[in-house]
Amino acid sequence: MFYHTKRMQFEAKPEQPDPVYARKLQELIGGAWGEMTVTMRYLFQGWNCRMEGKYKDMIMDIATEEMGHVEMLATMVARLLDGAPSDKTAEAAQNDPVLGAIIGGMDPQQAIVSGGGATPSDSNGYPWNGRYVVASGNLLADFRANVTAESQGRLQTARLYHMTDDPGVKNMLKFNLARDTMHQNQWLAAIEQLKADGLEGTVVPNDLFDEEHREHASTLWHLSDGDASQEGQWAHGTAPDGDHEFSFVANPEPLGGPASGPKPPEHLYATTWETDTMLRKAKNTVKDKLT
Amino acid sequence: MFYHTKRMQFEAKPEQPDPVYARKLQELIGGAWGEMTVTMRYLFQGWNCRMEGKYKDMIMDIATEEMGHVEMLATMVARLLDGAPSDKTAEAAQNDPVLGAIIGGMDPQQAIVSGGGATPSDSNGYPWNGRYVVASGNLLADFRANVTAESQGRLQTARLYHMTDDPGVKNMLKFNLARDTMHQNQWLAAIEQLKADGLEGTVVPNDLFDEEHREHASTLWHLSDGDASQEGQWAHGTAPDGDHEFSFVANPEPLGGPASGPKPPEHLYATTWETDTMLRKAKNTVKDKLT
Amino acid sequence: MFYHTKRMQFEAKPEQPDPVYARKLQELIGGAWGEMTVTMRYLFQGWNCRMEGKYKDMIMDIATEEMGHVEMLATMVARLLDGAPSDKTAEAAQNDPVLGAIIGGMDPQQAIVSGGGATPSDSNGYPWNGRYVVASGNLLADFRANVTAESQGRLQTARLYHMTDDPGVKNMLKFNLARDTMHQNQWLAAIEQLKADGLEGTVVPNDLFDEEHREHASTLWHLSDGDASQEGQWAHGTAPDGDHEFSFVANPEPLGGPASGPKPPEHLYATTWETDTMLRKAKNTVKDKLT
Amino acid sequence: MFYHTKRMQFEAKPEQPDPVYARKLQELIGGAWGEMTVTMRYLFQGWNCRMEGKYKDMIMDIATEEMGHVEMLATMVARLLDGAPSDKTAEAAQNDPVLGAIIGGMDPQQAIVSGGGATPSDSNGYPWNGRYVVASGNLLADFRANVTAESQGRLQTARLYHMTDDPGVKNMLKFNLARDTMHQNQWLAAIEQLKADGLEGTVVPNDLFDEEHREHASTLWHLSDGDASQEGQWAHGTAPDGDHEFSFVANPEPLGGPASGPKPPEHLYATTWETDTMLRKAKNTVKDKLT
Amino acid sequence: MFYHTKRMQFEAKPEQPDPVYARKLQELIGGAWGEMTVTMRYLFQGWNCRMEGKYKDMIMDIATEEMGHVEMLATMVARLLDGAPSDKTAEAAQNDPVLGAIIGGMDPQQAIVSGGGATPSDSNGYPWNGRYVVASGNLLADFRANVTAESQGRLQTARLYHMTDDPGVKNMLKFNLARDTMHQNQWLAAIEQLKADGLEGTVVPNDLFDEEHREHASTLWHLSDGDASQEGQWAHGTAPDGDHEFSFVANPEPLGGPASGPKPPEHLYATTWETDTMLRKAKNTVKDKLT
Amino acid sequence: MFYHTKRMQFEAKPEQPDPVYARKLQELIGGAWGEMTVTMRYLFQGWNCRMEGKYKDMIMDIATEEMGHVEMLATMVARLLDGAPSDKTAEAAQNDPVLGAIIGGMDPQQAIVSGGGATPSDSNGYPWNGRYVVASGNLLADFRANVTAESQGRLQTARLYHMTDDPGVKNMLKFNLARDTMHQNQWLAAIEQLKADGLEGTVVPNDLFDEEHREHASTLWHLSDGDASQEGQWAHGTAPDGDHEFSFVANPEPLGGPASGPKPPEHLYATTWETDTMLRKAKNTVKDKLT
Repeated sequence: MFYHTKRMQFEAKPEQPDPVYARKLQELIGGAWGEMTVTMRYLFQGWNCRMEGKYKDMIMDIATEEMGHVEMLATMVARLLDGAPSDKTAEAAQNDPVLGAIIGGMDPQQAIVSGGGATPSDSNGYPWNGRYVVASGNLLADFRANVTAESQGRLQTARLYHMTDDPGVKNMLKFNLARDTMHQNQWLAAIEQLKADGLEGTVVPNDLFDEEHREHASTLWHLSDGDASQEGQWAHGTAPDGDHEFSFVANPEPLGGPASGPKPPEHLYATTWETDTMLRKAKNTVKDKLT
Repeated sequence: MFYHTKRMQFEAKPEQPDPVYARKLQELIGGAWGEMTVTMRYLFQGWNCRMEGKYKDMIMDIATEEMGHVEMLATMVARLLDGAPSDKTAEAAQNDPVLGAIIGGMDPQQAIVSGGGATPSDSNGYPWNGRYVVASGNLLADFRANVTAESQGRLQTARLYHMTDDPGVKNMLKFNLARDTMHQNQWLAAIEQLKADGLEGTVVPNDLFDEEHREHASTLWHLSDGDASQEGQWAHGTAPDGDHEFSFVANPEPLGGPASGPKPPEHLYATTWETDTMLRKAKNTVKDKLT
Repeated sequence: MFYHTKRMQFEAKPEQPDPVYARKLQELIGGAWGEMTVTMRYLFQGWNCRMEGKYKDMIMDIATEEMGHVEMLATMVARLLDGAPSDKTAEAAQNDPVLGAIIGGMDPQQAIVSGGGATPSDSNGYPWNGRYVVASGNLLADFRANVTAESQGRLQTARLYHMTDDPGVKNMLKFNLARDTMHQNQWLAAIEQLKADGLEGTVVPNDLFDEEHREHASTLWHLSDGDASQEGQWAHGTAPDGDHEFSFVANPEPLGGPASGPKPPEHLYATTWETDTMLRKAKNTVKDKLT
Repeated sequence: MFYHTKRMQFEAKPEQPDPVYARKLQELIGGAWGEMTVTMRYLFQGWNCRMEGKYKDMIMDIATEEMGHVEMLATMVARLLDGAPSDKTAEAAQNDPVLGAIIGGMDPQQAIVSGGGATPSDSNGYPWNGRYVVASGNLLADFRANVTAESQGRLQTARLYHMTDDPGVKNMLKFNLARDTMHQNQWLAAIEQLKADGLEGTVVPNDLFDEEHREHASTLWHLSDGDASQEGQWAHGTAPDGDHEFSFVANPEPLGGPASGPKPPEHLYATTWETDTMLRKAKNTVKDKLT
Repeated sequence: MFYHTKRMQFEAKPEQPDPVYARKLQELIGGAWGEMTVTMRYLFQGWNCRMEGKYKDMIMDIATEEMGHVEMLATMVARLLDGAPSDKTAEAAQNDPVLGAIIGGMDPQQAIVSGGGATPSDSNGYPWNGRYVVASGNLLADFRANVTAESQGRLQTARLYHMTDDPGVKNMLKFNLARDTMHQNQWLAAIEQLKADGLEGTVVPNDLFDEEHREHASTLWHLSDGDASQEGQWAHGTAPDGDHEFSFVANPEPLGGPASGPKPPEHLYATTWETDTMLRKAKNTVKDKLT
Repeated sequence: MFYHTKRMQFEAKPEQPDPVYARKLQELIGGAWGEMTVTMRYLFQGWNCRMEGKYKDMIMDIATEEMGHVEMLATMVARLLDGAPSDKTAEAAQNDPVLGAIIGGMDPQQAIVSGGGATPSDSNGYPWNGRYVVASGNLLADFRANVTAESQGRLQTARLYHMTDDPGVKNMLKFNLARDTMHQNQWLAAIEQLKADGLEGTVVPNDLFDEEHREHASTLWHLSDGDASQEGQWAHGTAPDGDHEFSFVANPEPLGGPASGPKPPEHLYATTWETDTMLRKAKNTVKDKLT
């Protein structure tokens, strides 16, 4: 169960409205790597965590924090939209190209749909959706997804940091950047912890090593003609799992037969060479021609 | 530019049809972590890579390989559907519960839409979409996404491995498992390579450390009442980036003011306490009542 | 900012696993009217509320509660999936039709993707998305949406209540039904409060009554040949806003001219009768025939 | 079965083209609350209505009308796009900032995809989809959804009314506003009619009141620290259904146990503390290290 | 503007309920090639048609008809769901495998969401969406899309025809098949008419033949190693437009330079070899290591 | 299996950056008719083709080529974005309306998400998805879809050709136009080939002509009041299949009964007139009133 306090985790006050920037900031709310994603992702991971104790507790701490980040960003967007020229007409824009440019760069739904507030969408107005959630039950697989989320998130935040001069916006983004730094470190530490606790290894899942075709578990197939791919440490030496030696397959050949499907049953009407089909079809064709 | 050979990278021949399993296998084709995702993800990363040389060449090698994996899986699905009871009627199912169960467990679109072949969808029939692609231009951020993709991919493959007894299916999955092992190792090695080459550090992006609010870059906010979250190595000691000391904020308080938005312009009709609005509205209400 | 406690708002313990029911219950998590919808909807409404005081506080109370409902349902789904036959093969199903039916009726992603847990999707595996959120800034418009959400939600919960015999599941649903009763009443009361406070009227938005074409603001156009539509109280008498008299237009005729678009510029290649286009096209056609 | 007449229900003629406004108007065509939504929603409700007579006939009347509204809006959009600068190049925009602003604010698909016509999408280019349809079979639940749709629809229309000066556009919107006023009143009247006919009550569905946990059916849980939520008439007094007394739970405590999931089967590879798993994993980890 | 009559274009009465078939039939309602697609597609084509006269009138005739087909199918689905075991519990299914199979094969939303009616979704529960609409303004391009739609539609109808024994269902499908036959012929005839009227040629759009690189307008690039592709009449002889001679490029080589992107600005943090970036990054890396 | 060469099929070098055009060009990458569509469509058609030989080989040739077109377009977009003002702030735009217009017209995700590269989305930022793929197994149905794709594709390319003055962009588009000309001709030739080989006829599928209601297989129902629809060659004369005579039904009447659904079971709570329901409901209503 959750509790809420009216105060935000950190301040979210721009000095000036900036409706074009308000559209861009939507990426951090409802984008693939926005705060709605980490909120829902960590919540589902926490609920799906099958071990009581430090892992589950930590996941729920951070999940609960992220929800507060959506709150900060939604508040910032509403304030950036203060006084946005949502009622300016074609005539006004005709007389003031700067105004026209602002109208052109705004998210129309922030006015028409939400009445001057944020929407659960990204900077192109595409709605957030549940396929952004990663919660597999395997903590190593999911913590890797989380390092990624915080990396992409800090990257987008850094890009947005350079797109504004507003001291108030920058102040909030400095907090977001710091939290993303923390969370990248946190998930990296958690990955190490999983290994230290003997719970997971290097490869996910830590199983089926005897079953998989071992001869194909360490080869780089050279399928594009750029020659430099053999120069990386992914093409020779010991692999990170300590269990394989990388090698480079310079001229790879296919190992399987031709890709081909069986003839489906008649009633699915796949086009085939088969005689009986042809006869029936020929009959119809003839009928076509004669009638 | 691409070339294609008719033979598959590895064999994809089931011993027996199994239409219910054919539905499940769709997850590896068009799911969030399926082969279409890694194909398109690596292609866009390769095209978006701004450095000629080993990184770009390696990305294109693996991108080109993944496309061949879609081919293997699509072929396997078509063969698993061979003889599927797609034309069996209610009466037939009434008399044969096993048949009824198979019909119920099949993906209806594999018959009605694709005529006995695979579709670009996941195991619930949801179509693959471009938001699964991650190609930010920052290689560390993207390689972390790639380790994740290969981890989730091998995890799902391993789960599917246990859901069949068919030696032919298992033979192909053993190859897929091995390639996912290779690719997890490969992207992990590539991350090390980026650091060894002095191109990226631990935190993405490797910048704005002086700008971010440093005091918030290493604290775990304890926002859920599970006490164990402080026991992990994410709550004390040096962070993986070597630059921060983790600490635990046991009783965190909000730092910002209340979350509140400004009053939008009248013509957006947000409900507010403001007098002028109330007057106008009162007037209308009165008018409502009088008329 | 939010806080979380590990205990759920209400108990969520089934007596028996039931993987087929676990799929159905997804509708209440990630469906259009599920708990994710009301959580996100009320959160965005609260953040988008432009009046400090009782309305905003109440919205945030209920928003915070709903998030806990997602938690209860996700927990219930995980427990219903306990021991689900996710690894049963075609051969096993062949020998046990009941088992086959269960496999056929399960959501495959609950095993393959989330490893025995809930997903942020509905009962057909379609992901939750942000277009389900309604937060317009106009409280009357949004509270009507909220009454609807709680009505559809209680309706679906009631339907699901009849689809199980499990006392543990029923116990939780009895709580959910009660909360939905409360929340329907609560939003209905809030609508009355808006009117009592003189903030909103009957029609949304409470404006532009002088501008709209009044003669079209109270007529029922009879466009389908069922004769009974004139019998309802929507076709005669005073309208709920107290400001209009309903009337029935028995034989409505169109008031506008024909629906037709202007000829777009040549370079968009719309097909038209225009001579110059025809000449150019004729020229090409002739060229086609001669070459 | 349907018939169509070429004339529109009302005139849809702008005085001037305005391609930026043509993009905004898409919200009323293919947005969540646009005319496609009410068309399809009422059609499915009508087809799904299980009572012959006035309700079904009225639903079909209005459904049939709404389709004509899509026609009016699509016509208006095509006319607003007349002469839109869809072929203007970067150089032209460089020399004319007003032109540049117009190009920037246009929906590119209205030129590239539909050749100067409307698309079945909203003002951000997101396509209309079937999850906007509400047709549950329960008329009270659905009529509430319909009041909402007409409220959100009139709200958006009113917002758009202020964004243009064009007398022709305003003339059409005055008709749309009037129809939305009518339809809000109509559905409100229909809700009263349902009660007057003894078909539905206040709470949806009108059942399971003895089964639900009555003690939780009238309490407001105070989960956010804004104190004013107890001041509304939703926190004390008789509820709108006449059957409950509202009360305020000032310091709510969770009633359930901790949210936790059972250990899934080994083959799903959830990370757990369990010994046997740890042994196997430890074995693999050792093997990792030794090899 | 539209009118509606209560009677359906053709009868839609099954002899027996069949809830599993009711799910399959959804493909013809809300699938990519279902009746909602042709309804909306033809309506938008009609409204977007820039020529008064026979083309526009014919498009509107068929558009109006298709809407009635959605009505027939929605009615059929509701009747097929009559008595569907939507309230049967796990225990009941345990005792009756046939019942279990039926429950497993049903669309759960047809009970939980629509209360025993059709939904605007396909047979996998994926909602219909506006990207299925094709209305480009170019009649040849769109009529080709329409021939396709009627072809895929009749194909799916034919497949579904074989999946039932119910005489009532088959009776309706025989009508649908006939209409699809008509409509395939109709659009094929309309394509011929366009050419006969001198409005369009063979290639869409009928322009830019002098501008396009003519040497690449008739060559088949042999990029997959199947040798037979040169045997078709697409590899030699005169092309259908009468203006080109097909030829076969047996060993095609790329004509362009390497695919590479420019270095983006520093503030987008793309990983590059550039010295200044490296210096800054190296500095940070050193700082990482020293701290 | 696939191979890749670093060189592109054709050159993709603009003379000048043009970030607004870079957004528009996304339509050709990830739009419904973009290169990702034809790539995936032809690949799935090839894999789903059930006849070894010329058809399958030709499909795979062209599928493999299309993938290279995505590469060309993605490269062009990256180059058009060179130096895009992605870091320009509100202040800068205030001082330079041209700059403001450019920022307003850009796709924000091309900077924030992909760091100066293309995304797998269309010109409105909507992601490509798998429902654009058409691969039914019936070659006539699919080849018609392919003619359509190449027609819509060339149409959009031609429109885009007129929206730029850049010689480098135009040079690439001239190649694309030529290939689309070739591919329209190629699929038209393939359709003729299917008939010449006796594999398919005119109507898809070539079957069930004796079963369908023949009397409805050649009539144009006049359902919209435009009189000219009878003037086309689709209303009289022999149909393209040579087997039917078109006719015009000037005053069509419905053939079916009223569209009505059966009463669903009580537990689905559809609103009905039925007495027992009414009794229960009345009871509750009374209870409502008395309490």
